[in-house]
Amino acid sequence: MKIKKLILNMAMEAKKAAKTVATLSTDIKNGALLNMSQGLIENSQVIKRENAKDLKEAKKKGLSPAMIDRLSITDSTIKGMADGLIEVAQLPDPVGTIIKMWKRPNGLLVGRMRIPLGVIGMIYEARPNVTVDAAGLCLKSGNSIILRGGSEAIHSNRILAHILQEALKDKGIPTSAIQVVPITEREVVGELLALDEYIDVIIPRGGEGLIRFVAENSKIPVLKHFKGVCHVYVDKTADLKMAEKICLNAKVQRPGVCNAMETLLVHREIAETFLKPMWESFKKVGVELRGCSKTRKILPNIKKATKQDWYEEYLDLILAVRVVKDINEAILHISQYGSSHTDAIVTSDYDRALKFLKEVDSSVVLVNASTRFNDGNQLGLGAEIGISTSKLHAFGPMGLEELTSTKFVVFGNGQIRK
Amino acid sequence: MKIKKLILNMAMEAKKAAKTVATLSTDIKNGALLNMSQGLIENSQVIKRENAKDLKEAKKKGLSPAMIDRLSITDSTIKGMADGLIEVAQLPDPVGTIIKMWKRPNGLLVGRMRIPLGVIGMIYEARPNVTVDAAGLCLKSGNSIILRGGSEAIHSNRILAHILQEALKDKGIPTSAIQVVPITEREVVGELLALDEYIDVIIPRGGEGLIRFVAENSKIPVLKHFKGVCHVYVDKTADLKMAEKICLNAKVQRPGVCNAMETLLVHREIAETFLKPMWESFKKVGVELRGCSKTRKILPNIKKATKQDWYEEYLDLILAVRVVKDINEAILHISQYGSSHTDAIVTSDYDRALKFLKEVDSSVVLVNASTRFNDGNQLGLGAEIGISTSKLHAFGPMGLEELTSTKFVVFGNGQIRK
Repeated sequence: MKIKKLILNMAMEAKKAAKTVATLSTDIKNGALLNMSQGLIENSQVIKRENAKDLKEAKKKGLSPAMIDRLSITDSTIKGMADGLIEVAQLPDPVGTIIKMWKRPNGLLVGRMRIPLGVIGMIYEARPNVTVDAAGLCLKSGNSIILRGGSEAIHSNRILAHILQEALKDKGIPTSAIQVVPITEREVVGELLALDEYIDVIIPRGGEGLIRFVAENSKIPVLKHFKGVCHVYVDKTADLKMAEKICLNAKVQRPGVCNAMETLLVHREIAETFLKPMWESFKKVGVELRGCSKTRKILPNIKKATKQDWYEEYLDLILAVRVVKDINEAILHISQYGSSHTDAIVTSDYDRALKFLKEVDSSVVLVNASTRFNDGNQLGLGAEIGISTSKLHAFGPMGLEELTSTKFVVFGNGQIRK
Repeated sequence: MKIKKLILNMAMEAKKAAKTVATLSTDIKNGALLNMSQGLIENSQVIKRENAKDLKEAKKKGLSPAMIDRLSITDSTIKGMADGLIEVAQLPDPVGTIIKMWKRPNGLLVGRMRIPLGVIGMIYEARPNVTVDAAGLCLKSGNSIILRGGSEAIHSNRILAHILQEALKDKGIPTSAIQVVPITEREVVGELLALDEYIDVIIPRGGEGLIRFVAENSKIPVLKHFKGVCHVYVDKTADLKMAEKICLNAKVQRPGVCNAMETLLVHREIAETFLKPMWESFKKVGVELRGCSKTRKILPNIKKATKQDWYEEYLDLILAVRVVKDINEAILHISQYGSSHTDAIVTSDYDRALKFLKEVDSSVVLVNASTRFNDGNQLGLGAEIGISTSKLHAFGPMGLEELTSTKFVVFGNGQIRK
């Protein structure tokens, strides 16, 4: 009951603050973002001290070294967060922009003006930098945010929120525009997901389990980010040197993230010529291959891929490989086993490049480039708050514009409807 | 169990058809739309015969004359539906359009391409013309649709679906792209709302009860259209003749629809000069006024407005009237009692016009024009499938573009991530 009341209260305050934040000038918002950035640098010692409490707890609980790595805040993490806020301040303010305007036969001028969504609820796991990144993006786009981070990061998140709120105060912005849930009880999430009267959208970030739980239990619309089973299809007309470079980058540049390649599809006519040197390159950096029967005729020493492998998001130095008959079989494979995240073709054929772009139903579809480019920053949106793999509202990386909606504004001079 | 299976099967078929419909050429889609239009005209007799069964049933059940009026299909209704399909054929095809394109420093060309949403579930009440309008819009935007109309219209909807499907067949389009649920059992809706694996978005149209039920029970994202408590604010600088014309139009041109004015807000300095002749005009056409205490000092014979009146969507020749201190009080009133639907200001002051446009948080905000313009056709979107009063995905009238999403398409020449 106490938790219910706490969360309800936070949500109501966030809604109230949203009305103010929606009408702030760009200058005030940018000033607050720079304040926030400076606050982080000035309070480095306190942040690291609080983070140490989380780390101590994490080690006691026996969390994995990878988890502990993601949890830990160093001077360079703090610099990264502070620089991120400065970058967001430099991005154009979407709020109030009229993105399109046209004239009706009766003389009405009709435009679509960007407006904030309202209150964003963010539910995420270990990385405390998400707290700062998300808060910055929501402020710039005129939204309030309620942040519910992982319990492992509670001390870090609380101090970060405190620093951000101090920066808001200094600019006269209500502090409830950026709130971190200060408690770790599990029922908090359920309480948040029921408050559709106050929270306008939920953005979960984390493992598949968390996202499914949120999607299934939310009364509030959810911008989902499910797994990334990303493909590269190497066409028979591909420049094979380029294909090798792209595949290597897509698999190993950062294998633990959602836009890394998980399955390689190769046209049968160039399979042998391509796969043999490719396999040598992969071996050098420790990538394990799992192949279909045709792949294993070319590379007899690799493991056999089962049907399950086609669905797998390894997030590791493992790659499934399948030899396909043609581009149609490649597209069919992607539609059957893919996750609508990121898929690329390497080809020098014009028609097949366009066919792949048109027919592959994923949030980012690339020709002759690495899947690793599915990222708000890389695609030119500025910082991103997440990647949506469902089509409603936003599909693909979500930047500032995706945190807004549009309303119609109409300029008349006495028009009435006939 | 039989119903569950029927609905599941329809949804699976719709999903399958969606893949085909998504890639149809504009010519094929337009051809099918024209076929559908012709099919309606050619089958007028059959349609009216089936509609007569619904009407007979409706009269037996004692439905209101208004309901029966909305249910009945005449030659002119058929002509209207047929013409509507021709208009949709003439609208530009959004699918495949690249709405924006830019170049990254590394040479990547990044664009956003419109794509269909997938499968639309439409849940609506009596008017059978929605069946045809929605089917046409969904086909043109490359989506499949499952239509669940009111039980009163079941014979009409079944024959309409049959005619539309025949038109699809003729163009080689899978008939499951347009399906009407052929049974009237109540549990159908619940079954539909659970199939988030196959249906991508639900659009309910009808009374507030239906929409709340759908919103609360759906596992699928819902594009909601709640009630329209629309305001006109007459500023002290308004051209009072213009204000009178606009208010009359907004209230009486079609009082039963969601974009009709329900509350009139008047600046106190011009309240007396404006309200006295306005009241004479309203009286002539039978509008009943309910006023705040200040209004009733000017018009002592009208009823008193209670707080409940400010929330009311009368959909009738009744109007609440309140005298306000200034534009701030007007905006506050709208934010407190309005429904984010449609609000207008009548003013000749530049600053106040812009202030109202910026600060009123509604899907359509107008200066010096009637609220009745909140309509896809009137605003230049072409036909509309509904009006969204929540901000996610679409806010305001939804036309063809609102039935699409965008994916990122990336043209590279070997770029990899550094």
